[in-house]
Amino acid sequence: MERKITNKRKELYLYSDTRPIQDGMGSPVHRVSMGDTWSRQVHPDIESERCRQSFDVERLTNILDGGAQNTALRREVESIIHSDPEFSLKENYFMSQSERYEAGVRRRFHVQMLAQRLGWLENSCELRYAYRAISGDLGLGLHSIFLKALRNLGSEEQIAKWAPLCEKFQIITTYAQTELGHGTYLQGLETEATYDADTQEFVIHSPTLTATKWWPGDLGRSATHALVQAQLICSGAQQGMHAFIVPIRSLQDHTPLPGITIGDIGPKMDLEHMDNGFLQLDHVRVPRENMLSRFAQVLPDGTYIKLGTAQSNYFSMVETRVNMLSNEILPVLQKACVIAIRYSVLRRQSKLRPSDLEAKILDHQTQQQKLFPQLATAYAFHFLANSILEFFHDSYSAILDRDFSLLPELHALSSGIKAMVSDFCIQGTELCRRACGGHGYSSLSGLPSLVTRVTASCTYEGENTVLYLQMARFLVKSYMQAQASPVSTSQRSLPKSVAYLITPGLDRCPAQRAADFLHPELYTMAWAHVAVRLIKDSVHHLQTLLQSGADKHEAWNQTTVIHLQAAKAHSYYVSVKSFTEALEKLEDEPAVQQALKRLCDLYALHGILSNAGDFLHDGFLSGAQVDMVRTAYLDLLPLIRKDAILLTDAFDFTDQCLNSALGCYDGNVYERLFHWAQKSPTNAQGNPAYEKYIRPLLQSWRSKL
Amino acid sequence: MERKITNKRKELYLYSDTRPIQDGMGSPVHRVSMGDTWSRQVHPDIESERCRQSFDVERLTNILDGGAQNTALRREVESIIHSDPEFSLKENYFMSQSERYEAGVRRRFHVQMLAQRLGWLENSCELRYAYRAISGDLGLGLHSIFLKALRNLGSEEQIAKWAPLCEKFQIITTYAQTELGHGTYLQGLETEATYDADTQEFVIHSPTLTATKWWPGDLGRSATHALVQAQLICSGAQQGMHAFIVPIRSLQDHTPLPGITIGDIGPKMDLEHMDNGFLQLDHVRVPRENMLSRFAQVLPDGTYIKLGTAQSNYFSMVETRVNMLSNEILPVLQKACVIAIRYSVLRRQSKLRPSDLEAKILDHQTQQQKLFPQLATAYAFHFLANSILEFFHDSYSAILDRDFSLLPELHALSSGIKAMVSDFCIQGTELCRRACGGHGYSSLSGLPSLVTRVTASCTYEGENTVLYLQMARFLVKSYMQAQASPVSTSQRSLPKSVAYLITPGLDRCPAQRAADFLHPELYTMAWAHVAVRLIKDSVHHLQTLLQSGADKHEAWNQTTVIHLQAAKAHSYYVSVKSFTEALEKLEDEPAVQQALKRLCDLYALHGILSNAGDFLHDGFLSGAQVDMVRTAYLDLLPLIRKDAILLTDAFDFTDQCLNSALGCYDGNVYERLFHWAQKSPTNAQGNPAYEKYIRPLLQSWRSKL
Repeated sequence: MERKITNKRKELYLYSDTRPIQDGMGSPVHRVSMGDTWSRQVHPDIESERCRQSFDVERLTNILDGGAQNTALRREVESIIHSDPEFSLKENYFMSQSERYEAGVRRRFHVQMLAQRLGWLENSCELRYAYRAISGDLGLGLHSIFLKALRNLGSEEQIAKWAPLCEKFQIITTYAQTELGHGTYLQGLETEATYDADTQEFVIHSPTLTATKWWPGDLGRSATHALVQAQLICSGAQQGMHAFIVPIRSLQDHTPLPGITIGDIGPKMDLEHMDNGFLQLDHVRVPRENMLSRFAQVLPDGTYIKLGTAQSNYFSMVETRVNMLSNEILPVLQKACVIAIRYSVLRRQSKLRPSDLEAKILDHQTQQQKLFPQLATAYAFHFLANSILEFFHDSYSAILDRDFSLLPELHALSSGIKAMVSDFCIQGTELCRRACGGHGYSSLSGLPSLVTRVTASCTYEGENTVLYLQMARFLVKSYMQAQASPVSTSQRSLPKSVAYLITPGLDRCPAQRAADFLHPELYTMAWAHVAVRLIKDSVHHLQTLLQSGADKHEAWNQTTVIHLQAAKAHSYYVSVKSFTEALEKLEDEPAVQQALKRLCDLYALHGILSNAGDFLHDGFLSGAQVDMVRTAYLDLLPLIRKDAILLTDAFDFTDQCLNSALGCYDGNVYERLFHWAQKSPTNAQGNPAYEKYIRPLLQSWRSKL
Repeated sequence: MERKITNKRKELYLYSDTRPIQDGMGSPVHRVSMGDTWSRQVHPDIESERCRQSFDVERLTNILDGGAQNTALRREVESIIHSDPEFSLKENYFMSQSERYEAGVRRRFHVQMLAQRLGWLENSCELRYAYRAISGDLGLGLHSIFLKALRNLGSEEQIAKWAPLCEKFQIITTYAQTELGHGTYLQGLETEATYDADTQEFVIHSPTLTATKWWPGDLGRSATHALVQAQLICSGAQQGMHAFIVPIRSLQDHTPLPGITIGDIGPKMDLEHMDNGFLQLDHVRVPRENMLSRFAQVLPDGTYIKLGTAQSNYFSMVETRVNMLSNEILPVLQKACVIAIRYSVLRRQSKLRPSDLEAKILDHQTQQQKLFPQLATAYAFHFLANSILEFFHDSYSAILDRDFSLLPELHALSSGIKAMVSDFCIQGTELCRRACGGHGYSSLSGLPSLVTRVTASCTYEGENTVLYLQMARFLVKSYMQAQASPVSTSQRSLPKSVAYLITPGLDRCPAQRAADFLHPELYTMAWAHVAVRLIKDSVHHLQTLLQSGADKHEAWNQTTVIHLQAAKAHSYYVSVKSFTEALEKLEDEPAVQQALKRLCDLYALHGILSNAGDFLHDGFLSGAQVDMVRTAYLDLLPLIRKDAILLTDAFDFTDQCLNSALGCYDGNVYERLFHWAQKSPTNAQGNPAYEKYIRPLLQSWRSKL
């Protein structure tokens, strides 16, 4: 496999403009131009940003990739992808919903052909890098969700039967859970699977309009098989949600099978390359073996046997949630940072002094204040996602072996962190877009589609408020557990992520000057203090209501706003802690470590300033100390300013993958925007509105005069 | 005119389903259905919300409309518009950029024909109501900006010549200010207008690529004349920005005139009904009379005569900024509230108690916490926009008479308030969208287009950060003025909106229980305290830097983040104050007043909680008092819950204008979403991707087996 790529490599480099640009420390920087004539010349305003390098960008890229060999492999895959015009994203901004869908399917077809030819396996690094290069604009992506669910919920025989069919696209699969009337609250799903012992089949049925499956990707126009989540009814008893493999379209001619009503749910805010669909099932029969049965079985006579906890069904959602952080959500914010920060050293506006040239907008303090917290967040979340993934892998094999002891913590942590990461990435991406002013509103900047795409992530795989509250329940439980038992016991028994709940902390922050706030232990401790206080506060409110006689569900509902606040503070604490821990591991890379430490400091302090009330509330910080935080924060901005372009270069996104007129490596912003606009179909076609309406309008009064 | 409408009325009511639904207080509620069969039946889950009315919805609608006669006129105009299929918005979600443009022009054509037939004048209430009914999806809208600029900057002769041509659409006009390389910083504009005394002409020229005019609406494919903002050069001297009327397309055949390069700038995040365009001018000559000359003239020999201040040129932008609050920005948030709150009494999710039905999501505290602050903001901004408009009208005639004394305050206030209103409306609209979960991501909900449209308003007519800083400069100046002179003098001389800077306040908030925070004087005073402190703080930081020897521009730049904070607090104070003042005027309407007072309380307290750090910083509030604020705030939510549907009904948007599957008056959410989705072109057309890619993919491995 390695050989194949290497053979292909030489030929590919002829295609793409990969002249190694020397950086200050001598390592080559990987760049692929858009093939525009003016991209031969790097704009001096961005070139000057790359002259003085306080750290080795290539090393940082390697760290982000998890090793230099990964960087090399990624670039090889990217070169393969970008050399093939089938994968080009250039026309994306000019396409209709149907064209976007067709292009997505086309790319999937070609990436599969490539994978077959080059031996890229499902879940291989190569495929992951290929998806990154194609920027997620790929159809038939639900098969990976189907596979995850199959592997988590299916028996060994079921996996052996269905996984190869799915991996090789001999069937096209989707995951059909959400209904028109139900989303996050899975117990409310209405689709029924009634076991018929006479035929040993399940009868899958949508009893109402609201039971219509709604939203599954690839369902509208593509899938041949759906993993349908339905309420199992056997021997007259409801057994809760289970997953069933249901053929929905003919493998011969792709028409819907009998009893299946199916279609596309129409236009969306984005994700138009995906055919989100609807599905109504009218007493559709599937054989008994089609119920995934790792954790529950129905015997031929209809006896129901449970082999796991009720939570086991949720495990594939946990996995999806953990994976989407690095694969889907975070790259969006990173790209937005690259585009906005590059544009901000090219765009000039206003003079800082009357005698000067107009300043690069990145030299305005307000622009730094908009962008650098987003950049810091992009790095913070890289390390956070890594640490959650690590925890997930630690728990994974245990859970598959039916040891569920880590599941509550994993569920809580992955829920809250998914909510935080998506919330912040959505907000940050939109901030980056706005920081580009009017041009950020042009689709050609690449920013609108980043925003409209990532904003979906606050809802799918669990609505964020609901997810935060899942974490909050775990926090309440952990806190009460800590209170109930002696310190020594609970220290051993408390899950790792909440062990700090019983670590005694200081009542007052000891910082005496701004510089004190640049100590990671200090701001981590500050975040721990606030998180503990808010968790305590939320438990207190809940208990007060309960003691005053409120029903426990009502008491929970009446305190959810307070619980939300606690879960958010805990999540922020976890993210600060994971960033500081990641920094500690970089002691062999002092230059990179220093650059990242500034971002870590900024991330932690920006969070304190944005939530200053929580820190002032009990006097943990004084007003004077908050001013010190602000001073420390503002002083960091010009330091990060010097590294800003390098820190975005380090993400190492190719120009093709960014697909932005504002964000290319060479900085030729205006030429590119001008020339891309010329390609708009609105300029190519005539203007039928002129003959029909404009000319009659211009002449409407003349006829009366 | 009145007669014409009345004659038409009877016939129209046959079209539209306007059966008067009785409300609790006996006044008819205006409703126009979407003509769907199921809309005959109002869903019981929303009907029950309208049973008990604590106030007369119709009265509130009248108050929002500025009188019952306005409400009646608006409804008549809406009936006319909705009875004409040319104005239907139904197909909007399924159209390409070009189709959206053509539909926009088509609607303009028909609305003009209607205006001619019914005698609706430019700037009449009828036209304004027609635009509201069409939801702004109208082409050729820049003519109103052109007209404003003409009336503000043109001489009487120029107005007499050009205004009628423009009003009657004998020419189609646009306003060309922004360039590829310059937006908000007008002094940087590069387009040149050089006076040629020999021919008594101006030579209008784009000297660089970045001088290309970029973004003007209606420019790309429609306009025949542009008001071009350019740097005037006469007798060899640069005289700054002036406005020139430049013919750009032939009135005969619509082709670009000599020297004009013109086109569409391509796809955008939204606003696709508008052909935002680019324009390059190659030494285009226009006669001397084409320079607008109310405030500056060039005599035939090239002598430049100034007749106003440098600021006079900015006045039409101030007017546009003031008008866009009520006409463009605020209705978006109001509609989003209507859609999200109606959907939230129909969507059910999770059981609050195990024995109950699933609860309406509006009964979840977190959903109230998401939506009610937005609803409160929508009302707060209604009264705020009214008060700014009033101030604008007070200043207007003075300014046209060259009395510029109120201009600095008007400029500062309109800048900061535009920034705040657009920021909050963008954020609130997106919050409403997310509060609808997955369905909020469907275009058919109407919410994505509201978000993607309103988000443009943070940039156009002045980028928000720049605008806030304009306000901040005024605050710094006013504060220093107040400090410099004795209290008695400055109380007289300080502009009204900043007079509170010298009103002595309390150092500690006197509130002792949660209920104390429901006194408008108390929270208005709290906001005043915080605003004054932050303004003082920003001046202090600026002065400290200056005293330490920093250059004044550098000192300003280094304190802009702090100035921003001050300007935001001042803006919030102004908005709280205008809401409380509006409430005072409603003493004859105690029921309406009570319902609105809860929103006003919520608005003020939500702001305090969101910025608690600012109130705790100097001990003005204690931690215990912030907890009281939170208690008062949380206690308001269930009270507002009872009125929520009524408060959204009161905005009185027709179903056609909302164009939302989730937000119709009748509450038949799921039927409508299902049926609208069927109409998607993706369901009507075949699937070419099947033969091309899906079938080959399904078979690709078989051939190898």
